[in-house]
Amino acid sequence: MSSSRRDRVVELMKEGQRSLVQALEEIDGGGEFGAFSWQRPGGGGGTARVLEEGRVFERAGVNVSAVHGREVPASLVQEHPGIEGKPYFATGISTVLHPRNPYVPAFHANYRYFEVGSETEETDVWWFGGGADMTPNYPFEEDVRHFHGSLKAFCDRHDPNYYLHFKETCDDYFYIKHRGEMRGVGGIFFDELSPAGRGVFERDFAFVQDGIDALTGCYLPIVKRREGTPYGDRERRWQLYRRGRYVEFNLVYDRGTLFGLQTRGNIEAILMSMPPLAHWSFAFEPEAGSLEAEMLAFLQPRDWVGSVGVETAKS
Amino acid sequence: MSSSRRDRVVELMKEGQRSLVQALEEIDGGGEFGAFSWQRPGGGGGTARVLEEGRVFERAGVNVSAVHGREVPASLVQEHPGIEGKPYFATGISTVLHPRNPYVPAFHANYRYFEVGSETEETDVWWFGGGADMTPNYPFEEDVRHFHGSLKAFCDRHDPNYYLHFKETCDDYFYIKHRGEMRGVGGIFFDELSPAGRGVFERDFAFVQDGIDALTGCYLPIVKRREGTPYGDRERRWQLYRRGRYVEFNLVYDRGTLFGLQTRGNIEAILMSMPPLAHWSFAFEPEAGSLEAEMLAFLQPRDWVGSVGVETAKS
Repeated sequence: MSSSRRDRVVELMKEGQRSLVQALEEIDGGGEFGAFSWQRPGGGGGTARVLEEGRVFERAGVNVSAVHGREVPASLVQEHPGIEGKPYFATGISTVLHPRNPYVPAFHANYRYFEVGSETEETDVWWFGGGADMTPNYPFEEDVRHFHGSLKAFCDRHDPNYYLHFKETCDDYFYIKHRGEMRGVGGIFFDELSPAGRGVFERDFAFVQDGIDALTGCYLPIVKRREGTPYGDRERRWQLYRRGRYVEFNLVYDRGTLFGLQTRGNIEAILMSMPPLAHWSFAFEPEAGSLEAEMLAFLQPRDWVGSVGVETAKS
Repeated sequence: MSSSRRDRVVELMKEGQRSLVQALEEIDGGGEFGAFSWQRPGGGGGTARVLEEGRVFERAGVNVSAVHGREVPASLVQEHPGIEGKPYFATGISTVLHPRNPYVPAFHANYRYFEVGSETEETDVWWFGGGADMTPNYPFEEDVRHFHGSLKAFCDRHDPNYYLHFKETCDDYFYIKHRGEMRGVGGIFFDELSPAGRGVFERDFAFVQDGIDALTGCYLPIVKRREGTPYGDRERRWQLYRRGRYVEFNLVYDRGTLFGLQTRGNIEAILMSMPPLAHWSFAFEPEAGSLEAEMLAFLQPRDWVGSVGVETAKS
């Protein structure tokens, strides 16, 4: 039973990768995804699918990994006493999309599954984690509403409390403390869908399956709407400048990235999230009243879809 | 006496900033340094001098700060028991140079002074720290020999053991663990010139003064030699790719940067070290036999100036 549970999740992740890659190649209409497989010395491995220098995407990556080990990593033991020294299994899909056109937001999503125990001897300690978030450079309210609205719709099909809870966790997580701003406009994020050892597998599996299915619908319509917008040096420069913040978040705060670097995971798969090009400018301030300046107000938590019944005033 | 000691070091740092800025403007022959002053809410402040989009330097920054506080930062107390709860004073100069031409190395140096006690009530607990290191993109042995040779010459004027000791500390410090390579070709680095509370002020002051004076001589001749070398897209791309490593080091490992971000120092002054533009490419491998591939061998510690009597074989 345990092995079939793992197999089902791995198959879900692989199927997610296949369909995402297909949908992204279709919309890109230019680039093709290469496939890079890697092995982990401790057990398992993964396949990174990467498109670079496409028509729509300057870089698009979809990585799936499935690893196992003889002892649960120390960082997880702190949060889950009682699992120390036990074997574990972990699988996940992650995608990071850096579009070329500055008017198209960057996108990130990740769904993952962790299980304590061996293939032959399972425990009930397992959980799903995941989320999806968007990082626009320009403040188009309809884009953000579409994105959050789609995520809310999918969450609401499973539990009326999920969206708001996961949205707030996401706002907290993607916060660049030293800049006092979020990386983007958030989305949803959860560390454990059900607390470890207390999940209902079929229910949680169905939620994650639905979450992976929802990725194209929440994001690709925005790509289609914006990818033809003309832009010049000013917009490109602003995009690269905002990508500097993306780098700062990923290298200073992102738990997945830092965990990967510390445990010496596959470095290229871990840093697939880096933008292809990023810019830093000293003490840069966007022109008052410009769209760039207006964007900064979007980088504070906001109730985008009226989920608590009262719309937050536009600042 | 305490206040005159502090005043002398601050004047040394400011004089270093003035002469560096002048020498860099002269060699750039195009850009001018702006001046950005900042205050620290806890006490003190600084002035960042920054040139962007110059002829030779895509970005050049020279920052001087002098701050004080009522309680020594916790991170320093661990290494120096007995100073907790005491007032402190810290001043320093730091410079980061990102040239435009890929054949010209990037450069970084920092000299700093820390003192426990108040202006009116001094302790004997003070120390100087500092160093200078270089980050080329192309493997020109004569450049690295000139750089290390100049640093050794200045160190040797003060103590025959300094260079090798500080060179090895530098090799250890500027190591990008997750890549298994150094940020550049090293240089010299020291946390405490004399151990806290055991320095001889005039001797240590003279060394740091000489170190600041030596910055132009160890680096600018290399700039002059390379800044006119023709280059194309390939070299520019490689430079931006190598700058990605520079970003990775600074945001993941550099103690000064992380300390600054954690203590919420002036964010623009802290991140002045970021390159203006950086590039990441998935699983990039330079062509076998190319200069780019040959560069990787320069990113492992090497005895550049025969300082232990035996030349390390060129790999």
